[in-house]
Amino acid sequence: MNYFKQFRVKPGSRVQLSKIDTSFKGEHENHKSALPEIQQYDRKIRDLQYLMYAEQKHSLLICLQGRDAAGKDGTINHVLGAMNPQGCTVTGFKQPSAEEADHDFLWRCHKAVPRRGHVAIFNRSHYEDVLVQRVHKMVPRKVWSKRYEHINHFEKLLTDNDTLVLKFYLHIDPEEQLSRFKQRIDDPARHWKISESDYREASYWDEYTAAFEDALEKCSTDHAPWFVIPANHKWFRNLAISHIVTRALESLNMAFPAPTVDIESIRKKYHALNRAEAREGKVPKNKSKSPK
Amino acid sequence: MNYFKQFRVKPGSRVQLSKIDTSFKGEHENHKSALPEIQQYDRKIRDLQYLMYAEQKHSLLICLQGRDAAGKDGTINHVLGAMNPQGCTVTGFKQPSAEEADHDFLWRCHKAVPRRGHVAIFNRSHYEDVLVQRVHKMVPRKVWSKRYEHINHFEKLLTDNDTLVLKFYLHIDPEEQLSRFKQRIDDPARHWKISESDYREASYWDEYTAAFEDALEKCSTDHAPWFVIPANHKWFRNLAISHIVTRALESLNMAFPAPTVDIESIRKKYHALNRAEAREGKVPKNKSKSPK
Repeated sequence: MNYFKQFRVKPGSRVQLSKIDTSFKGEHENHKSALPEIQQYDRKIRDLQYLMYAEQKHSLLICLQGRDAAGKDGTINHVLGAMNPQGCTVTGFKQPSAEEADHDFLWRCHKAVPRRGHVAIFNRSHYEDVLVQRVHKMVPRKVWSKRYEHINHFEKLLTDNDTLVLKFYLHIDPEEQLSRFKQRIDDPARHWKISESDYREASYWDEYTAAFEDALEKCSTDHAPWFVIPANHKWFRNLAISHIVTRALESLNMAFPAPTVDIESIRKKYHALNRAEAREGKVPKNKSKSPK
Repeated sequence: MNYFKQFRVKPGSRVQLSKIDTSFKGEHENHKSALPEIQQYDRKIRDLQYLMYAEQKHSLLICLQGRDAAGKDGTINHVLGAMNPQGCTVTGFKQPSAEEADHDFLWRCHKAVPRRGHVAIFNRSHYEDVLVQRVHKMVPRKVWSKRYEHINHFEKLLTDNDTLVLKFYLHIDPEEQLSRFKQRIDDPARHWKISESDYREASYWDEYTAAFEDALEKCSTDHAPWFVIPANHKWFRNLAISHIVTRALESLNMAFPAPTVDIESIRKKYHALNRAEAREGKVPKNKSKSPK
């Protein structure tokens, strides 16, 4: 199977979320049987990330979108768990600050894109400006309707600068959302984060569906594809995303840069010398007594 | 044992690094026997980090210093592996950019301190300005000698704002450093990052020792302690740091905030209602067919 191809929103195609199975499981029945495959991707992702860091040519931007409780946080934990955290940044885009709102809608996102060799994950993203802002009529249609094109141009700027842009919509259904809300209610350690607004947002389900479908249709491009990931099963969501990230990184055909020094001469000059010095007791004083 | 107490540089005390065993192993003989204890701390750290995030009162800043190959990167991987990466940022402080050099030495570090509820890890830190800058005489003594006091004032500002500041010096000896350099030479995937300057820096071993000792003595305060961590054994370094971070977080006596809503009324209003709606087929269309 090739989830890259299967879940990618083909540029120019129509999206009907109601026709896409939120509970898709592919070849595995459950988490246990999928685990070896997930771990295999995760090891590859770590190696590829290291290669990307070493090569200093590409960078990777992952945008996560989805309704409340769709699993954005869980996905980030999973994907970052596979990576070296030093080469990654995660930026959450909530309600804009006063300073952010005083700029164009892409300003705060542009500041957070990954530097060369690095990975950035957006927990929500510039797409919020064609989702929540549209659904709640925070800006008029003539403003949000122009944003799709701005987004495509912005993402082209990034990909032309060798940033790989992957966008995931985590696809759950209303029953799954409600059941996840319920789990929070049933767990005292999560009571502090329950708010009635989650439930109010859920009542805009259809409006959000329309807004998501528009964003997916208008902004899944050859350079920056959208993927609709069946996400009722958390393990399948992780499997599919790890699979797609692996494939995408592999397609970059990266290679380690050549060493900047002559390794053999370094080896002779320092590692021979220092063994001799050590024998003569010339190394500095604070040596360990116990053998390693 | 209490590594918090054992490895802390007592404010006002003298530090002689040559007297501190770089190969200390405590109660365990090897990684295997230490692993259950390390994992226990790591689980606690994750819970405490979550509590800190929920409570939104404290934050945590971890500064890592040490010579080349002392294990700063490995420590970050380990500590972050125990945490939720979304609540953490890692900032590396290498040679200052032109913009950074045009400001006071604390400017770039202040920008990177953790926000409330979050964790920040500094890979090298503001201490570079009393280490490399002093050893290589990049600024005159009258400049660097004033910096210790600025550092103490800066860290007091942070701790007064409920940031927990923990500073770790990773203590290895020259043989261990050379052996780690050698491992890089012997691994083709790491050739690209070998530079002769690592070896040149090593020849300033004693000058760095003096500079580290001064920093540890002058800047280990009651509010922001320094710890000297025996780091020849990577597993012991991880054990000791996880132990100290756990203890320090526990001492904050954090608690979950009270819920902002009445949980029972939410339960009745939405979870009862929605079950009824579901029975009447009122929930939106795209429901999953397969049971979860």
